[in-house]
Amino acid sequence: MQAAIDQVISRITPADKEAVQRAEQRLDILTKPPGSLGRLEELAVRLAGISGTEQPAYGKRTVVVMAADHGVCSEGVSAFPQEVTVQMAYNFLGGGAGVNVLARQAGAEVKLVDIGIAGDVSHPELIARKVRYGSGNMAQGPAMSREEALQAVLAGISVAEEAVKSGTEIFITGEMGIGNTTASAAVLCALEGIPAETAVGRGTGIDDERLRHKIAVVDRALKLNAPDPGDGIDVLSKVGGLEIAGLAGLILGAADAKVPVVLDGFISGAAALVAKALAPDSVHYMIASHISGEQGHRLMLERLGLTALLDLGLRLGEGTGGVLCLHLIEAASRIMREMATFESAGVSGAESR
Amino acid sequence: MQAAIDQVISRITPADKEAVQRAEQRLDILTKPPGSLGRLEELAVRLAGISGTEQPAYGKRTVVVMAADHGVCSEGVSAFPQEVTVQMAYNFLGGGAGVNVLARQAGAEVKLVDIGIAGDVSHPELIARKVRYGSGNMAQGPAMSREEALQAVLAGISVAEEAVKSGTEIFITGEMGIGNTTASAAVLCALEGIPAETAVGRGTGIDDERLRHKIAVVDRALKLNAPDPGDGIDVLSKVGGLEIAGLAGLILGAADAKVPVVLDGFISGAAALVAKALAPDSVHYMIASHISGEQGHRLMLERLGLTALLDLGLRLGEGTGGVLCLHLIEAASRIMREMATFESAGVSGAESR
Repeated sequence: MQAAIDQVISRITPADKEAVQRAEQRLDILTKPPGSLGRLEELAVRLAGISGTEQPAYGKRTVVVMAADHGVCSEGVSAFPQEVTVQMAYNFLGGGAGVNVLARQAGAEVKLVDIGIAGDVSHPELIARKVRYGSGNMAQGPAMSREEALQAVLAGISVAEEAVKSGTEIFITGEMGIGNTTASAAVLCALEGIPAETAVGRGTGIDDERLRHKIAVVDRALKLNAPDPGDGIDVLSKVGGLEIAGLAGLILGAADAKVPVVLDGFISGAAALVAKALAPDSVHYMIASHISGEQGHRLMLERLGLTALLDLGLRLGEGTGGVLCLHLIEAASRIMREMATFESAGVSGAESR
Repeated sequence: MQAAIDQVISRITPADKEAVQRAEQRLDILTKPPGSLGRLEELAVRLAGISGTEQPAYGKRTVVVMAADHGVCSEGVSAFPQEVTVQMAYNFLGGGAGVNVLARQAGAEVKLVDIGIAGDVSHPELIARKVRYGSGNMAQGPAMSREEALQAVLAGISVAEEAVKSGTEIFITGEMGIGNTTASAAVLCALEGIPAETAVGRGTGIDDERLRHKIAVVDRALKLNAPDPGDGIDVLSKVGGLEIAGLAGLILGAADAKVPVVLDGFISGAAALVAKALAPDSVHYMIASHISGEQGHRLMLERLGLTALLDLGLRLGEGTGGVLCLHLIEAASRIMREMATFESAGVSGAESR
C-alpha cells in the first residue's frame, strides 16, 4: 500500500508558472483599474497555475464527505452522542444537511463515503469504503494501525481517481464524525509541534469545563502515542481519524490529477497538513475556502501558507464553507473568460503620469 | 420635490420583530450545532426582519448602476480621464464590465441609469434620468443646487418604485463616475465630522502625491461650501454627486417597499449615510456586502452600524461586491427553506448536561 501511495506522491508537481504569467497579463488588460478585483484576481492567478489555463471553467463539482467515528468520544469530548454520525449519514443521503442545501445552490454533487462509521449505513448512493468500525481511543492507544491508515489514504486517492474519471473538475473536502475536532487538533499538535491548549477548540459547542477536559485528553494521547512529526502516516495512525486519512488521500489524488481541491474547515485543514507532510507540492492545488470559528484553524492555514477567502464564523464542517466558496471560484474564472478588455470596449486606460 | 421625498421617508418603518423571532427559533431546530453557520445565521435573521418572513426567497434581482460625472475631476483627483465614464457606460450596456459578468453569474439584471453623465449616451436599455451634465467643481462652489439634489434623490426613488412594480425582490447598488471617491469622501467628512485625511483613499489607484492633493481638494471643498451635517440634502448639493444622490433615493425607495438593498462599496456607503441621515430606519433594509480596499469604507460601515460579509480587497465599485454577496443571501435563505430539522431527519440533539 505504501508503494501505491508513494507512486501518486512522486507524480505531484508544482503549479504551472507559464499559465500564472498569462493570467497576470490578462488581468491587466481587462476594463478595471489594475488590482481592483483584489482577492478575486489572486484567485484567478492561482486557478491558472492549477489548471494550466488562464481561462479555466469548472463544470462538474464534487463534494466528498468522508464520515467516520472516533474512539476518543468515550472520553466525553463532544457535545453530541456518537450515534449522530450514523443519523447524519442518512441526513446527507436524504439531502437535508447543510452541505446538501448549499451544494444544490452551487451545482455540486455530494458524495458520502463511509470510511469508518461505527455503525452500519446502507444506501444505494453511499460509497462504502469502511476501513474499520470507528477508530480506537487515542487516549488509551493508537487510533488505528499503520496498515489501516494507509488503507484509508488509498481509499481517498481512489475516490479522487474515480471521480476525476467521471468528469469531476473541482473537489470540495467535507466530513462528518462526532469527535473529529479532537483528532484534528491532535494531528495539528503532532505535525506542527503546537501545544494542545492552542490547537483545541470548542467543536460543536462545549463549555469551559469540557474544553479543559478535551485539552487534557489530546495531551494524554500525544504523550501516550508519541507520533513521529516527520511521518504523516504515523501521525494519522496514532492520533488521527479515518476521515482525516481519507481526505488526505483525496487531496493527494486531486493534486495528482491537477484538479483544484477546495478545503473546508478544521478537519479538512488537518487532512491538508497530512497531505503536505506526505507531498509538499500538493499545497499548490489547495484553495482555502474559509477561516472557521474553530480555534486552531488560523494556525493550520498559516502552516499551509494559505489565506482563506471567506470569514463567516462557520463551524459546521460537512464541506459547507468549501461549497460556499465555489461561487468565488466561479466568479474569478468568469472574470477571466467574459470581461471586456480596454481595447475591445474602447475604454481609455489610466493616464500616464 | 421635498414633500414627495418626505412622504416616502414617513412610510419607512423598522424591521419586523416577529419575523426575526421566528427566524431565530427555526435556526435552532435545524440539523446543526446551534450557531454553527455563523454569519449566515445572522444574515437569515436580518433578511427575515426585512422581508417579514423567516423563509424568504429573492427571485428578481436588480443591480442599479447610477452613472454621473464630477466637476471636481478638473482638479486632477483621479488616475483616469473623465471620458471613461461615457466609455464605461457603453461597456455596461454591452455587458462587458465586471458587474455584468458577476451579475450574469448571480442571475441579476443590470440597469444603467444616466443621472448625470457629462456626455451623451444613447442606448435602448439606458434609463435616462440626467439631472445635469456632471456636477459642478465642489472645490470652487457647490456641486449642484438644492433642487438638483432633490431631483436626483427623487429619480432614485422612482427607479426603485418602477423596479419593484416590475417584480424586483432585491436591489444591489452600483455606480460609475470618474472622481466619485472624492465626492464620497467629502460626504463622509461632512455628515460624520471626519477629517479629510481619514476619509480620502486612493480610488482607482493614485500615488502618494496625488493622494495628498486629493485630501487638500476635499478639505477646500468642505471649507468653501460648509455643508450642514444635519441636512442630508444640503450635504449632497454642496459636496455630493448625482449618482450618490440617486443611490440615496434608491435606498429610500427600497426601504419604503421593504425590499432588501445590498450595498456595494465606498460610493454606495456614502449614499447609505445620506439615506440614514434622511431616514434613520432605512438602515434596517441595508445589507453590507463587502468591506472595500478604499480607506474610509470601514468607518462608513461603523457609522451605519453594519458589518460586511465579504472582505476581498475589492475597489472596483460598479456593484461588483454587492452582486458577489447575493450568493450568501441566497445561501442564508435556502438554509431556512431547505435544511432538515432534528425531528424530520431523526437526528439526536446535543446531550443535556
